[in-house]
Amino acid sequence: MKTKVGIIGATGYAGVELIRLLLSHSKVEISSLCSVSFEGQNISDIYPSLKGIIEDKLVSAKEVIEKSDVIFASIPHGHSEEFARECIENGKLFIDLGADFRLSNESDYKEWYGLNYAYPNLHKQAIYSIPELSKKDLKGQKLIANPGCYPTSVSLGLYPVLKEKLIDKNSIIIDSKSGVTGAGRGLTLNTHFPENNEAFSAYKICSHRHTPEIEEMLSLIYGEDIKVTFVPHLLPINRGILSTIYCNLIDNVSLDEIISIYKNCYKDKNFIRIMEKGKENNVKYVKFSNYCNIAVNKDERTNRLVIVSCIDNMVKGAAGQAIQNMNLCLGFNESEGIDIVPPAF
Amino acid sequence: MKTKVGIIGATGYAGVELIRLLLSHSKVEISSLCSVSFEGQNISDIYPSLKGIIEDKLVSAKEVIEKSDVIFASIPHGHSEEFARECIENGKLFIDLGADFRLSNESDYKEWYGLNYAYPNLHKQAIYSIPELSKKDLKGQKLIANPGCYPTSVSLGLYPVLKEKLIDKNSIIIDSKSGVTGAGRGLTLNTHFPENNEAFSAYKICSHRHTPEIEEMLSLIYGEDIKVTFVPHLLPINRGILSTIYCNLIDNVSLDEIISIYKNCYKDKNFIRIMEKGKENNVKYVKFSNYCNIAVNKDERTNRLVIVSCIDNMVKGAAGQAIQNMNLCLGFNESEGIDIVPPAF
Amino acid sequence: MKTKVGIIGATGYAGVELIRLLLSHSKVEISSLCSVSFEGQNISDIYPSLKGIIEDKLVSAKEVIEKSDVIFASIPHGHSEEFARECIENGKLFIDLGADFRLSNESDYKEWYGLNYAYPNLHKQAIYSIPELSKKDLKGQKLIANPGCYPTSVSLGLYPVLKEKLIDKNSIIIDSKSGVTGAGRGLTLNTHFPENNEAFSAYKICSHRHTPEIEEMLSLIYGEDIKVTFVPHLLPINRGILSTIYCNLIDNVSLDEIISIYKNCYKDKNFIRIMEKGKENNVKYVKFSNYCNIAVNKDERTNRLVIVSCIDNMVKGAAGQAIQNMNLCLGFNESEGIDIVPPAF
Amino acid sequence: MKTKVGIIGATGYAGVELIRLLLSHSKVEISSLCSVSFEGQNISDIYPSLKGIIEDKLVSAKEVIEKSDVIFASIPHGHSEEFARECIENGKLFIDLGADFRLSNESDYKEWYGLNYAYPNLHKQAIYSIPELSKKDLKGQKLIANPGCYPTSVSLGLYPVLKEKLIDKNSIIIDSKSGVTGAGRGLTLNTHFPENNEAFSAYKICSHRHTPEIEEMLSLIYGEDIKVTFVPHLLPINRGILSTIYCNLIDNVSLDEIISIYKNCYKDKNFIRIMEKGKENNVKYVKFSNYCNIAVNKDERTNRLVIVSCIDNMVKGAAGQAIQNMNLCLGFNESEGIDIVPPAF
Repeated sequence: MKTKVGIIGATGYAGVELIRLLLSHSKVEISSLCSVSFEGQNISDIYPSLKGIIEDKLVSAKEVIEKSDVIFASIPHGHSEEFARECIENGKLFIDLGADFRLSNESDYKEWYGLNYAYPNLHKQAIYSIPELSKKDLKGQKLIANPGCYPTSVSLGLYPVLKEKLIDKNSIIIDSKSGVTGAGRGLTLNTHFPENNEAFSAYKICSHRHTPEIEEMLSLIYGEDIKVTFVPHLLPINRGILSTIYCNLIDNVSLDEIISIYKNCYKDKNFIRIMEKGKENNVKYVKFSNYCNIAVNKDERTNRLVIVSCIDNMVKGAAGQAIQNMNLCLGFNESEGIDIVPPAF
Repeated sequence: MKTKVGIIGATGYAGVELIRLLLSHSKVEISSLCSVSFEGQNISDIYPSLKGIIEDKLVSAKEVIEKSDVIFASIPHGHSEEFARECIENGKLFIDLGADFRLSNESDYKEWYGLNYAYPNLHKQAIYSIPELSKKDLKGQKLIANPGCYPTSVSLGLYPVLKEKLIDKNSIIIDSKSGVTGAGRGLTLNTHFPENNEAFSAYKICSHRHTPEIEEMLSLIYGEDIKVTFVPHLLPINRGILSTIYCNLIDNVSLDEIISIYKNCYKDKNFIRIMEKGKENNVKYVKFSNYCNIAVNKDERTNRLVIVSCIDNMVKGAAGQAIQNMNLCLGFNESEGIDIVPPAF
Repeated sequence: MKTKVGIIGATGYAGVELIRLLLSHSKVEISSLCSVSFEGQNISDIYPSLKGIIEDKLVSAKEVIEKSDVIFASIPHGHSEEFARECIENGKLFIDLGADFRLSNESDYKEWYGLNYAYPNLHKQAIYSIPELSKKDLKGQKLIANPGCYPTSVSLGLYPVLKEKLIDKNSIIIDSKSGVTGAGRGLTLNTHFPENNEAFSAYKICSHRHTPEIEEMLSLIYGEDIKVTFVPHLLPINRGILSTIYCNLIDNVSLDEIISIYKNCYKDKNFIRIMEKGKENNVKYVKFSNYCNIAVNKDERTNRLVIVSCIDNMVKGAAGQAIQNMNLCLGFNESEGIDIVPPAF
Repeated sequence: MKTKVGIIGATGYAGVELIRLLLSHSKVEISSLCSVSFEGQNISDIYPSLKGIIEDKLVSAKEVIEKSDVIFASIPHGHSEEFARECIENGKLFIDLGADFRLSNESDYKEWYGLNYAYPNLHKQAIYSIPELSKKDLKGQKLIANPGCYPTSVSLGLYPVLKEKLIDKNSIIIDSKSGVTGAGRGLTLNTHFPENNEAFSAYKICSHRHTPEIEEMLSLIYGEDIKVTFVPHLLPINRGILSTIYCNLIDNVSLDEIISIYKNCYKDKNFIRIMEKGKENNVKYVKFSNYCNIAVNKDERTNRLVIVSCIDNMVKGAAGQAIQNMNLCLGFNESEGIDIVPPAF
């Protein structure tokens, strides 16, 4: 019998991407979908691409929780704790694609998101999980904080050199570029077609909310506090994140050696692909898939590393990674349902 | 044991789309890939999106035919006959995504493609197949002419009203718009990014090679000779065809009635989706999938039908339909490997 | 001394395009700008592209009318009559880029726009003007209805063959495709970047409000009532309209002859460019300029004409044509301020 | 009488942009256009956007030089020296948009471009000129090296803090993103529409030929040798460069103070616009114009500056700056012909 999964926030972009992926997952079935904005309407009226495939009426969060063994929530921050509590109390697996459970310290959450925790105890049970970097066995866990899209691309890109302490921890600069779906389905002038098409900008320079999440993860890997400069940019494309990460090598390690450290570090990780020396990385190589492609380059003239890390912000950066986490919690094959061949165009 | 399939022309856009789809097909395995231009190179060097997924060296057509039970060819017209002959002689299934076997009359082929048939007898065995419109059982067939992208969108859009003889056969005007992948991977000024981006044009007005194919199919459905006006346009998007088809109703049939004729006509066809009255059709609803979405509208003021038919030119218009045809020839489930949920964005 | 011009609705897309063009006009100066939504703010805060060029505070419509000799209004329909009345009473030239004064019959306005006229007498003074087709001398006129974007592209495309009565008046089908700025700056889901990018759709099929305007103009040219089938589509580009117009030739006139009729008809019209036989037309050839490019093609097999007419929807389709009309009303050189070289990319 | 100007390399993207701008320049007239690839053809056949505006036949370089007082060359490196020599000998002004005269040291040219100088003496006369940063009066000069697009955006962005020695000269990291026209009109797979659309990549990481040009200019400003890390990226848009420049502040100067240094430094420079604190910068604010927009930000947490510099790569980064240089050489108003209002969309 298939595991019943439900989605709270099913009509957002991460929500509908969860639907797309879960429909091809052999071990689960979608029990119910919730959308506060569109309750009572049919999901295939909101997304006509789903016509004839899934035509469920959108229901309340309560109903989703009742009908499901696994609940994914993809909703604005500050709204997940209540649902998480209810799921935990009822022994259900809750996977939060939002920010509520990502930061370890309530003070950071307060500083960057402007809110306190409603249920501090809940946060102790939450596991922040980029599966390739998690040391803990997820099996049986009940509360997963699914990482942000930018932090996923950055943490995977820096993990090997941080772990090996090859770089100056104070030198990290992250220049990230994201497709527009990262900004969600809500209407804004910046995402109005004529404003964003043929345009390109840096935004929330050194003030993006993913900054503390990145720093917490990098610090954890390195074992000491790390501060980074993080600047996101908005690309006029639908999907994909490319993070160009700069850092200073401590010693003059050769590029061949570094690439081989990356390959070795990720040798059992199906979703991480290390590019051969000199090969360009491109968001198009990972679009629609759960892959993270990493290209490592070295500026011989300044002894800096230039790491280019690409993911699909909606798959490895959101829905795909959430399913990967679910697979691990439930003991399924890690790549079940997300073993997607990225289309060439 | 899985059926062995090979592709001749594997590095073209239809070829690599075949790879993407065949990799998820549970009944077949890719035996070998041929590319004249890139023989000896690795497919994942040509398409880095495939890295770690399929890393076959590109071989000769001869090797592909030897190693495969099913051979797909996606190559320029005039080159398929030789391979078809060889496959037929060796009892293999040959599915041609090119134009060599699409037209019934050599004179039409000569007129529009400038070539004679090399093996006239071969053409008698060839079956032109849009599966939803084919009356013949394909099982056991050995030579399939896979239809062109424009003709697929047009034939599916007009079939019900032609079959029911509801329209004036001399009034058909087809205004089609296609994404750029339809023009292939070969470099041309028209498909150079700065020339095609933020641009839009009609091309090959009333002279596109898909015209005789459209006319032959429509004539066959209607039972009399039909001539159409066909004007293709080039959209600045990667994928998708939207055909807006105009024709005059003979009698004043109501739109509700016509829509119900469409629904009834396609009621057992999984890949055809008839839009509800008044709903807009959009290429994005079918992208990456094998669906054909059809919206029927009526201009009450002029008693004309306006039929809007959308497909993904590379799936239902090429690789997906080819696999659908293979499934039927081999007795597999018709939607095996092409049962794809179109992503919402 | 320069003529003082003001804009009501300065922050909409047509409004800001008026600003761009008027800033290069040697005979006028911008006196004041009105925006209901942004009154009190600086125009260069709304449009940072204007920083250092024009940094006027947005004021009330009243102030604009007081300070200006010429008033352009680019606001939602139903709001222009009041301003027009005030301008006329004060002897000022009012050029309306909206729909309030475009239709001759109040009943049509009522049917398509859902409103009655507030000041019926005013409408008798209003002149609907596509300058190339206007027979009246505009000099000294005080109330101009600037045509819609689609009607401009269509009327210019059909004028010569209608005037010469070469086509069957009942056979006209118009398949138009427009860039997204035509939908304005207001936020809608359809114009949200991820929804419109890599997408393409027909919309308001046979029900777009430009239909009666098109029919009135074509009927006027032909001298008899004409009904057309008009289907607009939304292109994922910022600017440009391409209308593909189909109609049946009455006699079998040669294409050379027809093209020469077009050239002759427009020989003194600087902004109309007739493409040579067989040359493709493209919205990119006219972008940012006031040109209308017309390519005439003939389907020899069905004796139909296929006329492809391209304009920039925001210039010849809105702001540019409005300035062209102003130039004629004030006796300036017709092309003053709008004599723009379309950029190649 | 107008000055006669000619273009060698008129059909390339910088060449045709020169045509667009020169056609609106009140002091010059285009005498002749040369294109090696298209000699004998009409420029308006190559670029139909120019139909009816300029319809010159493309001639030889020899003819261009004979007929012109000012010669712009926009051709591949290694081909300009010969033309420059001929112009100088005949007392004509030669403005090279290519790389031949940009670097001071032949050894750098040899290292990065693989060629020696043909006429070493000529290079002593050449003036590399970003007008806002040039100390020399250009009036009467005969040989101008027009800067590269990336170096223009970077040098203008860093000039004030380098001049004031506010930053650690060893900390400069430049993450640049360019529209596709920067890659030229030549066909390549990377610029084939389906490959570049919905894609994004870093390229020539730490090995782009603009690196030595950037370093030479920054070193000259600072007075000591500077090495930078420079990583260009390819944006799926036609026009525009956005450079995000990272550097460490030596002291903890306040952002207000730094912005006021920028404003002061550029207070007489019409084409440089310093964004107010906290305002986002965007390539769309400068497209089609000669402006350079600079936004200065500070990462308070790491004491780094993040400078975002935007230009149109084809105007301030090529044709516009070349005309600006011509204006100064000939004593015209600096902004004549390039005083363009950037369109809002």
